[in-house]
Amino acid sequence: MKKLINNVDDLLKESISGFCKAHGDLVIAGADNKFIRRCELADKKVALISGGGSGHEPLHAGFVGSGMLDAACPGEVFTSPTPDQMLAAAQDSDTGSGVLFIVKNYEGDVMNFEMAAELYEGECASVITDDDVAVEKSTYSTGRRGVAGTMIVEKILGAAAENKMDLNDLQALGESVNGSTRSMGVALTSCTVPAAGSPTFELGDDEIEMGVGIHGEPGRKRIHLESADKHVNEMVGAILDDLGQQANGEAIVLVNGFGASPLMELYLVYNSARKLLEQNGVKLARSMVGNYVTSLDMAGCSITVCMANEDMLSLWDQPVHAPALRWGC
Amino acid sequence: MKKLINNVDDLLKESISGFCKAHGDLVIAGADNKFIRRCELADKKVALISGGGSGHEPLHAGFVGSGMLDAACPGEVFTSPTPDQMLAAAQDSDTGSGVLFIVKNYEGDVMNFEMAAELYEGECASVITDDDVAVEKSTYSTGRRGVAGTMIVEKILGAAAENKMDLNDLQALGESVNGSTRSMGVALTSCTVPAAGSPTFELGDDEIEMGVGIHGEPGRKRIHLESADKHVNEMVGAILDDLGQQANGEAIVLVNGFGASPLMELYLVYNSARKLLEQNGVKLARSMVGNYVTSLDMAGCSITVCMANEDMLSLWDQPVHAPALRWGC
Repeated sequence: MKKLINNVDDLLKESISGFCKAHGDLVIAGADNKFIRRCELADKKVALISGGGSGHEPLHAGFVGSGMLDAACPGEVFTSPTPDQMLAAAQDSDTGSGVLFIVKNYEGDVMNFEMAAELYEGECASVITDDDVAVEKSTYSTGRRGVAGTMIVEKILGAAAENKMDLNDLQALGESVNGSTRSMGVALTSCTVPAAGSPTFELGDDEIEMGVGIHGEPGRKRIHLESADKHVNEMVGAILDDLGQQANGEAIVLVNGFGASPLMELYLVYNSARKLLEQNGVKLARSMVGNYVTSLDMAGCSITVCMANEDMLSLWDQPVHAPALRWGC
Repeated sequence: MKKLINNVDDLLKESISGFCKAHGDLVIAGADNKFIRRCELADKKVALISGGGSGHEPLHAGFVGSGMLDAACPGEVFTSPTPDQMLAAAQDSDTGSGVLFIVKNYEGDVMNFEMAAELYEGECASVITDDDVAVEKSTYSTGRRGVAGTMIVEKILGAAAENKMDLNDLQALGESVNGSTRSMGVALTSCTVPAAGSPTFELGDDEIEMGVGIHGEPGRKRIHLESADKHVNEMVGAILDDLGQQANGEAIVLVNGFGASPLMELYLVYNSARKLLEQNGVKLARSMVGNYVTSLDMAGCSITVCMANEDMLSLWDQPVHAPALRWGC
């Protein structure tokens, strides 16, 4: 394992320390690094809190800031944060209008956020994201996995919360955005979890994992590496099939790198995906290409399509000022 | 070689196509992809043009936009663009106040930009960046290499050009920013140039290249991988030694990933570098952590320190709206 770390046990702590110092104008860490919170909370606004295992940076802490999340709870690498982290984040971020948890659909995350919700004495609701069309059940999840579409849910809900939307409406909007969002990914290499010290899975020199999860979970099949167009065709096809009648109109499209794939390749994938989507009646109203929901040092990428109505696009365009996403301010 | 491409010869073309479609509100490609230019040029403003081999994305095309570059000329991967590209970019971008070329110090780039300057009939000047302290002469360069500090030069000059600074003053400012900027990098793995099909250099399982160049050029030495703190100490030490008396006061600090190193590690490196810099009298007035000047799929990172006076910090803070850098708008 080749990583720029001091020792495995201190990686998360030292990384959070660097993150909070580099972005000290935007975020602070809670006691014992239980959560990372935006410096200034807004009054009469539902607090949006997400979290999950580390190793997917910039998700979630990179999206803490005005117009997006109020707090994020970082677990150890690929390990759910604990209920006391979410509870502490809720207690610290709630300014009186309640708390909405945004949770990727993995058993550990769902269970721990549920437990925190039970323990929390204030008003509290949850939105669970499960945008990955690759498989119906996976290593750590019952039902579909929550992957890169989570970022889109967080951005749109972040804007709506800033507009003082109430907790019930935010929850409904989150379910609606998740319900119109689909993703699928492909891995060219494995990632290496620092505490494990060796690759999570093995791929041959010309093999790829089609439909991989963001922790390296198996996808639909292991196949030979062929042209990008061919693989993009399979991913976009799976997304469109699953969207069915919804796949018509304007969309927010994200080509998300898993960490080790150069931008040149991600833009090539976008180029290929865009053609297919347009041929199928999807208008790419907003586009993002880059590393937003990563899997440590895995090479590969995912494609996310969020069919977006006017309201969603308008919320998407609202200002955001977070360490990893900024526009309009 | 595992890459998401169709065929090597079309990689650049397809990638540029995707880039220009994804960011169609900001940039357009010139004929034959000779350059990528911002959609709207400003009157009475010096045109800033950079360029170089591809494979370092988002540098340079990702920095084309208001408040930064007017155009960028993409060469093939790790290959200088040709003089006719720079000439076409100059002719297309100059609104009457002349053109400033920002050139990383590699022999091919310097020669080709010089040739373009000779051919160009308008007013024209150049700034050459050479911020890499690792070695005094390298595979493709006489004198020091221009690396991640180039982004800082481009940002500060971009703001000054937007303020209608004239060509002579911009050139002087560019030389001043470059003169107060130093970088050094370390590679944990090689990169693989698509047309070559195999890694540029070989490293053992526990070896790193200290002082590596952004094309995988040799650095100062090949050593065993040890703690991040130890390697950061060597890089920051080399930067501070070279800055000498300049290393006192406020700085813009960039921890730049080469492409395949997770953000967790980059923030850990920032944390380590920050401590050392502060101990040595450098105040981190502005900080950036992320992949800005990459080397395809190389794992590793560089540290850049730009000692910045009030004017430079103020220009740094001015709005920018480019595909890969955005604030204030």
